[in-house]
This record gives sequence, structure tokens and C-alpha cells, in this order.
Amino acid sequence: MTGNKKPREPSALAYTFIPIATLHTCFAEKFGIPRQMNLAAAATGRLVFHPRFSDTDAVRHLEGFSHVWLVFVFHRAMGNTWSPMVRPPRLGGNKKVGVFASRSPFRPNSIGISAVKLETVEHTGQGPVLHLSGVDILDGTPILDIKPYVPWADTITDATGGFAAERPSPGLRVVFSAAAREQSRQMADQIPDLAAIITQVLQNDPRPGYQSGFSASLPKNYDKIRYKTYGIRLFDVDVKWQVMNETALVLSIEPMASPGFEP
Amino acid sequence: MTGNKKPREPSALAYTFIPIATLHTCFAEKFGIPRQMNLAAAATGRLVFHPRFSDTDAVRHLEGFSHVWLVFVFHRAMGNTWSPMVRPPRLGGNKKVGVFASRSPFRPNSIGISAVKLETVEHTGQGPVLHLSGVDILDGTPILDIKPYVPWADTITDATGGFAAERPSPGLRVVFSAAAREQSRQMADQIPDLAAIITQVLQNDPRPGYQSGFSASLPKNYDKIRYKTYGIRLFDVDVKWQVMNETALVLSIEPMASPGFEP
Repeated sequence: MTGNKKPREPSALAYTFIPIATLHTCFAEKFGIPRQMNLAAAATGRLVFHPRFSDTDAVRHLEGFSHVWLVFVFHRAMGNTWSPMVRPPRLGGNKKVGVFASRSPFRPNSIGISAVKLETVEHTGQGPVLHLSGVDILDGTPILDIKPYVPWADTITDATGGFAAERPSPGLRVVFSAAAREQSRQMADQIPDLAAIITQVLQNDPRPGYQSGFSASLPKNYDKIRYKTYGIRLFDVDVKWQVMNETALVLSIEPMASPGFEP
Repeated sequence: MTGNKKPREPSALAYTFIPIATLHTCFAEKFGIPRQMNLAAAATGRLVFHPRFSDTDAVRHLEGFSHVWLVFVFHRAMGNTWSPMVRPPRLGGNKKVGVFASRSPFRPNSIGISAVKLETVEHTGQGPVLHLSGVDILDGTPILDIKPYVPWADTITDATGGFAAERPSPGLRVVFSAAAREQSRQMADQIPDLAAIITQVLQNDPRPGYQSGFSASLPKNYDKIRYKTYGIRLFDVDVKWQVMNETALVLSIEPMASPGFEP
């Protein structure tokens, strides 16, 4: 965010909301999160209500809906300033649009909405837990509200979509090195879906848009570039990969020794 | 709301948001508002930004999207209590579901979301004004956020919808009495779309579900019932109608002498 930053001031007109739940997901950091919901079906979420809102009655008949809207706080984007224009990754990160023409987390009110698949409603001794898939939300995100996705109202078949009209095509083929395949196999007990999550996350090509095929043509010296190694943290696992032409090669999948540890 | 009411307590974990805009609509009262967006296309809204957020840059390229999400405060529903279960009008008002399985305004955090049609972005001396249609939101509603409706992400074609799966069929034929037709004609200068708005609002049968054909069969003495006269306020106009079989007869359309005035 640069340029015309605006302060967030307190106001007599302010509304205060209290999170009802916390969402637990595989996305330990912002980098790598799919740029909309339902791009990575294997990316699951576990929604745990806070004690005051943990009431079986409050979710009664919710299981009849295949999808739910989550209204949540972009808690890592809460700050003191916002900019009227942002650079959406879909435009390569180098073209600006108005903040209200984007789904950017950096907005005057740091509220996000996301429609995710409702897999099951589990009833535990501590209250209901929602099991979700297709999530695009950071681990630990505070949830303000849950609403059913109402197909006849929320599915607007004649809607047209500006600069983000097309679903991004799965950009990359994903291949695991022998070492990464073995590491994934060893972790299958703790994280059964790890290989599927990695595949779906990397298919969507989380690199900044200006480095991917979405908006830029290949540089002339493309074949002479040393391939950059990217890293992403999923759960407590550090995944490293390189991109060659249209293929993401997963190099390694290693448990993190400590948060932020770099070997 | 009855039963197991929950207090809203202040909390250290609370998040505070400041409205960025106010939405002006024809719906002066809750009764009559369509029970989802896009049921009354003629119901328009004018979104006026508050001075601090009134910035042409912030809506740049928004006009490329046909629809936008409004994230808003159910400001008339802000209160001190909420109930884990609510009675949605779609179920006749006499069956309860969990509050998170409903779009009811009476929820732990009084936040609503609604996808409405973006007609135009007007640039005025006081900043941008969004002209919207298909709104289902009260006049004067505080707007917390505006986001583009992204068709490939927000249109979930395989979503299934629990108890609200089907779009409510336009329930009623709408007929204007000669008097109402003349009154509507006289007001056409001030409110050109008034007859269309009345028609679309009454087609959706705003009566409580248990009185409409959605869930109840006709009582045996139906033809002996004295038809009840209903009233609804749209803008500053008082509309009166009766329902006979599947027809809404508009009796009168009168400017309100003063807010809440009853002749």
C-alpha cells in the first residue's frame, strides 16, 4: 500500500462486533492462499465456536445447506491506514484499481466474506464444530458471522465480472520430486491430505501475478533464468518448490523446526 | 425473539468498524422488504459515501462489475440480546431454525450481506454515488463495505439450499384500483417507478408466511373472511392493499401527512 493513505479514526458512529468463532485452516501465512474460495477443495477448515456462542440450537438445520458464507475479520490486515487504490494479484500486481473494486484484505473496514463448502456439522462435548472445505482464509481468523449460501439468491447467473471475469485456469502442472514424495508419505498419518493440498495450492500458482503467465509475456532470456525457489508454510510444514515453464516441481516438504526457521 | 436470549457483552476481543456510506432506498420500514435481493428489480438504492471515504479512486474500475456485495449493519436490529433460534418467514413464521442457518437480521453480530445490481457510478461534486437496483435493504442503512460480485467465485452452481432451496414463485397477481392508478399517475413526476416498485413488492407477498400460500392451505371459511387491509410505507407514500385469492388489490397510494400518520 502506497500513496494516499487514510487514517482510521474513532467515531461516535462506530459499530463493535465480537467474534463468534475461530477458523483453523492449513494456511499459516498469507502467501499461497488461493485468491478466492473453492480453488483448493482439499484446503479444509475447522470452525470452532467461542464458548458464549457454542450452542447446538444456533446451527440447527444448517447441515441442509451445501455451502455457507463466512463473514470474517482480516485480522492480519487490521491497521491504521488504508489506500483508495490497491494492486490486485489478478492484474499482475502492477495495475491499480479502487479498493471497493477489489477483494483485497487492505480496506477501510477489514471485513472479508467467503462462501465455503460445509462438509459436516460435528457435535462435540464443547459444542458444534463446522468442518469446511475450499477455504481461502488464514489460520486463526476471527469469524463474525455464518450465513447459509442461498442458491437462488446468491447465484447471479447473469453477473459480469470486470477485470476478474474469468476463473483463473489451473496454471501449473504439479510434480513431486522423489524426496518430496517420500516426505509426504511419511507425514500422511498426521496430515492425510497434504499432497492434495500442496497440489491444489501450487496449481493456482501463488507467485505474484507479474511473475506468472496470467498477465506477462515471457522475458526474452527466460530459458537462462536460474529458477527461483519458493517456500510456503502449510500447517507446520515448510514446502519448497520451483517453477519451470508451466510446471511446479515440489522439492521438499519438511516439518518446521520452529516458526519462521529457515534452514 | 423469544426463549434463550443471550446478552451482548463488551469484550477485549471486539472489533470496531465505521460505516463508509449510507444507503438510501424506498424501504422506509421492514415490512414489505423483499426477503432476498433481486426479487424487486425496480427497488433502487442510492449509496452515498461519508466524506472521509468519498474518493473517486476508491471506486475506480468498479463499473466493470454488474453486481456488488454490500456488507451492512442491520441497524434497526442492533440490540442487547439474540436468540439461538429464529423463525424464518419462508417457513411460515412458526418453525424455528438456528440463527446461523438463517439470514435473519437478529443475530449475534448484526451484519448483513446482499448482492445488488450496480446500475451506474455517478461522479458528483461531493464524490461518487452508486446507483443500485434489486435492493432488499432498509432506507438509511449504514454500509461497512462494498466488494465486487466475482461471478466465477460467488456463483456456486452445485450449491444446494436446505429449507430455502427454491426461489419463491411470484406469489400474487397485482391489480391497481382506479383510485390507486390515478394516485400513482399523479406521483409519477416525483417517483417515476412507484407503480413498478409496488407491483414487485406485492408480487412477493410480504404478508407473514402463515397467512400466505407458501405454507398454509386455505381455511375452510376462506370466502367468508373479511379481507384484511395491509399498509406499507415506500418512500413517503402509504400504500394500502387487500389480498383476495391469489390477487393483491392496491386500494390507495397516498402521501404520508407526517411520519407514522394514520388517517
